[in-house]
Amino acid sequence: MTASPSLTVGLLLFPNMTQLDLTGPYEVFARTPGCTVHVVWKTTDPVTSDRGLALVPTMSFAACPQLDILCVPGGPGQVALMDDAEVLAFLRHQGAAARYVTSVCTGSLVLGAAGLLKGYRATTHWMSHDQLSLLGAIPVDERIVIDRNRITGGGVTAGIDFALAVVGKIFGPETAQAIQLQIEYNPAPPFNAGHPRTAPAVLVEKTRAGARLFQDRRRAVSEKAGKLLGA
Amino acid sequence: MTASPSLTVGLLLFPNMTQLDLTGPYEVFARTPGCTVHVVWKTTDPVTSDRGLALVPTMSFAACPQLDILCVPGGPGQVALMDDAEVLAFLRHQGAAARYVTSVCTGSLVLGAAGLLKGYRATTHWMSHDQLSLLGAIPVDERIVIDRNRITGGGVTAGIDFALAVVGKIFGPETAQAIQLQIEYNPAPPFNAGHPRTAPAVLVEKTRAGARLFQDRRRAVSEKAGKLLGA
Repeated sequence: MTASPSLTVGLLLFPNMTQLDLTGPYEVFARTPGCTVHVVWKTTDPVTSDRGLALVPTMSFAACPQLDILCVPGGPGQVALMDDAEVLAFLRHQGAAARYVTSVCTGSLVLGAAGLLKGYRATTHWMSHDQLSLLGAIPVDERIVIDRNRITGGGVTAGIDFALAVVGKIFGPETAQAIQLQIEYNPAPPFNAGHPRTAPAVLVEKTRAGARLFQDRRRAVSEKAGKLLGA
Repeated sequence: MTASPSLTVGLLLFPNMTQLDLTGPYEVFARTPGCTVHVVWKTTDPVTSDRGLALVPTMSFAACPQLDILCVPGGPGQVALMDDAEVLAFLRHQGAAARYVTSVCTGSLVLGAAGLLKGYRATTHWMSHDQLSLLGAIPVDERIVIDRNRITGGGVTAGIDFALAVVGKIFGPETAQAIQLQIEYNPAPPFNAGHPRTAPAVLVEKTRAGARLFQDRRRAVSEKAGKLLGA
């Protein structure tokens, strides 16, 4: 029997994030034998999500050891991270030596702003997909994109698929399958509207229209970050 | 245009729970226009999940208003709730007047211990399915089971499907579809092992064997709770 790898995973927690971007992958990584999972932010005070759920970081940036897997989730609070020098420095420092540099949802835009996706194929939440190229990444319209040691997932719930794929790649399919069985991940959505390809067109248009102002701001911030990188 | 209903959802948070049982439905309910979501426990001190993630309750039992939707998630900490007088009293009190009494994963066993599933069809995590009848419930091997105002979901990730189904039922399919699109819930598990029906038989057997001691204890507690109820 081969020894299981022993890896440290760090999930970035930040104000106004979408908590399911983090809690989905957390559940998978924390069940992986040999994985130690840290939830990391500037301090260890509770951090509140975009929808009001407060989570407690397990570790501050300052105390964080070198991570094997760095993972940045997304959500509206991502916009504020795009020019946050402390966050970008932490990601650059960790990203330089991490075995895998990963994201869920619009977390990929933050990796991009840190210069960590230049020339890498990547994905993000469907509504922000057109912003990846502003940061030097090569957008790929898939739920999970693996390019060398960069692994990016699509919007929110894609984080569960993403984490199972990462565990399968590193620890082997049997380990990932065991976790899938534990968490009864045999999805059966009662509707079929989870992507613009399958949702009613009128719903997609309404969703885009409702988010337009925020997406314009998000895009302007991505453009600015891209210019600073020379992307 | 019809006015949207305005509902209060209460998700029970408790020590050693499986956090994704709660955080999946939270993400869905918190995005539902007209829904106010409370995360409720005895006190408002942070509560740590079975895998080490600490979440902060938004409300104590004492401060909690009558809920329209009561939801009990599961996880190993469920066992300690089965004879916790304070928790069972809270659930009975809320359950008597709630519009919907619901659960995810082994949360249904706690509802059962509170006497809230007697004579109701219900589901739970696949590994504990045989315990439902000990508590007077009628086990149904489905991912989401609706019987009058009782709505129960299967293990862990079933909570996302469950919450979308609840929102679709109460607020209409368009509201649920809009949330499904926001959270890009277009699942694509990289493996097909999410249920004993699809997982390799050897994996199912290994998983059952690894959990046997804990499941024996869980079952003994369900039996005791059932006897107290006269179920």
